[in-house]
Amino acid sequence: ELRLLASERSEGNFLEFRGEEILVEKLDGDSFQGVDLVLFAAGSERSRQFCPLAVAAGAVCIDTSDAWRLDPQVPLVVPEVNPQALAGYRQKGIVASPDGATIQLVLPLGPLHAAARLRRLVVSTYQAVSDSGRQAIDELRVQAGELLNGRPAPAKVYPHQIAFNCLPQIGDFLANGYTNGGMKLVEETRKILGDPSLQITATLVRVPVFYGHSETVNLETEQPLDLARARELLAAAPGVRLVDDPADLLYPMPIDAAGQDLVLV
Amino acid sequence: ELRLLASERSEGNFLEFRGEEILVEKLDGDSFQGVDLVLFAAGSERSRQFCPLAVAAGAVCIDTSDAWRLDPQVPLVVPEVNPQALAGYRQKGIVASPDGATIQLVLPLGPLHAAARLRRLVVSTYQAVSDSGRQAIDELRVQAGELLNGRPAPAKVYPHQIAFNCLPQIGDFLANGYTNGGMKLVEETRKILGDPSLQITATLVRVPVFYGHSETVNLETEQPLDLARARELLAAAPGVRLVDDPADLLYPMPIDAAGQDLVLV
Repeated sequence: ELRLLASERSEGNFLEFRGEEILVEKLDGDSFQGVDLVLFAAGSERSRQFCPLAVAAGAVCIDTSDAWRLDPQVPLVVPEVNPQALAGYRQKGIVASPDGATIQLVLPLGPLHAAARLRRLVVSTYQAVSDSGRQAIDELRVQAGELLNGRPAPAKVYPHQIAFNCLPQIGDFLANGYTNGGMKLVEETRKILGDPSLQITATLVRVPVFYGHSETVNLETEQPLDLARARELLAAAPGVRLVDDPADLLYPMPIDAAGQDLVLV
Repeated sequence: ELRLLASERSEGNFLEFRGEEILVEKLDGDSFQGVDLVLFAAGSERSRQFCPLAVAAGAVCIDTSDAWRLDPQVPLVVPEVNPQALAGYRQKGIVASPDGATIQLVLPLGPLHAAARLRRLVVSTYQAVSDSGRQAIDELRVQAGELLNGRPAPAKVYPHQIAFNCLPQIGDFLANGYTNGGMKLVEETRKILGDPSLQITATLVRVPVFYGHSETVNLETEQPLDLARARELLAAAPGVRLVDDPADLLYPMPIDAAGQDLVLV
């Protein structure tokens, strides 16, 4: 049995699942009676408030927000990379899913780390607007159209124009000069790869792309790892597709990554 | 006296310089009689052919193409960074100007290198279409408009769609897996900073921005260099404007870099 829970705004809507129309109910503290598994995808505030209530009602939570990701009692899991961490789910009844920028980073890094142990990563991102929500997608679309027609295009979702521009800001700036988006990438990657000493620096940049984050990653390993072996490992990595044939001008691009789940490397 | 030289296509046009209309003449081997200084900005093929003829006629050439940049007898000069290299101009009669992506990199790096000696650089770029010429600017503009209107938008200048996409290719791919754009950045930076042993790796990416290249740069120095000192050096660097006030959401963006000559850091 699938139950759909949302805010008052969506209460009473119907959504289709496997050919069946299912009523959207209002989420409240009593929603979790008789529920085994709850999938949270409504932001960290909602998760912080309702995950403990769901757990108290006997459910296990899988949470996609950043509310619990760095809690030492909560496994942070990418199934292809660290499924063994799931074993710890009973500690708090919650399993966390990392940020999208982290998932696509650890999928290729997992096998490289296992083979040669990563020591140091320098990451730069080229992040699409889609993970800022539907309003951000509209903002890029509308802004680009207005600018192409020579009309002003005010920014609302982002602090500055995103169409035909790059914004080196994902989230809010912290005292250390990084954004919280950048620190999520650092801390989540360390936790998933099980290596708190892994050196990572990341500059996160929003680019005028609708769907599909890109990342450049420079990495150093403890043990030698030559290019041929790295390519073999990546070609065999679950969740990864090696797209690396420059002679035929084949390489990863966001327009090819969009609409499917594999990470193109 | 200013003389304007171009191909047959532009012969007979007039261009305005300081209020005076000047006739565009056809470039040929006899064009350089009585000329002191020639500025070449017509691509490497033209420069390779005509710089030696200009020099033979007694002129000094300043060349903006990549034809002579790595020639050991040709100074590669960014005036704010290595003006002393100009002294070598008599060896071949040619002075080369580096690639735009190199110039913006060495302007801030010059003072940091002088203060603490750079050891290693990891660079990722976010390059605008403008340096591919006017047709590339048109391609981004037209493609973006067509896609926003739900129409197909074939790529002509670039091998793939550039609107709302990122292309990890600047120039052609070489046997070492880098593009020649990436290797230019590496070799030119080493030459200008006068340090052939400087370790540099660069991933060059074209982004859907009209004007203004961006770069993320991770650097290691031989001598300690703390953030406060680095900021002081950058604030005082000629050709550089420090734009670094995240609390007020002020940071470098291509839309602010366009239309002026300073490099925003």
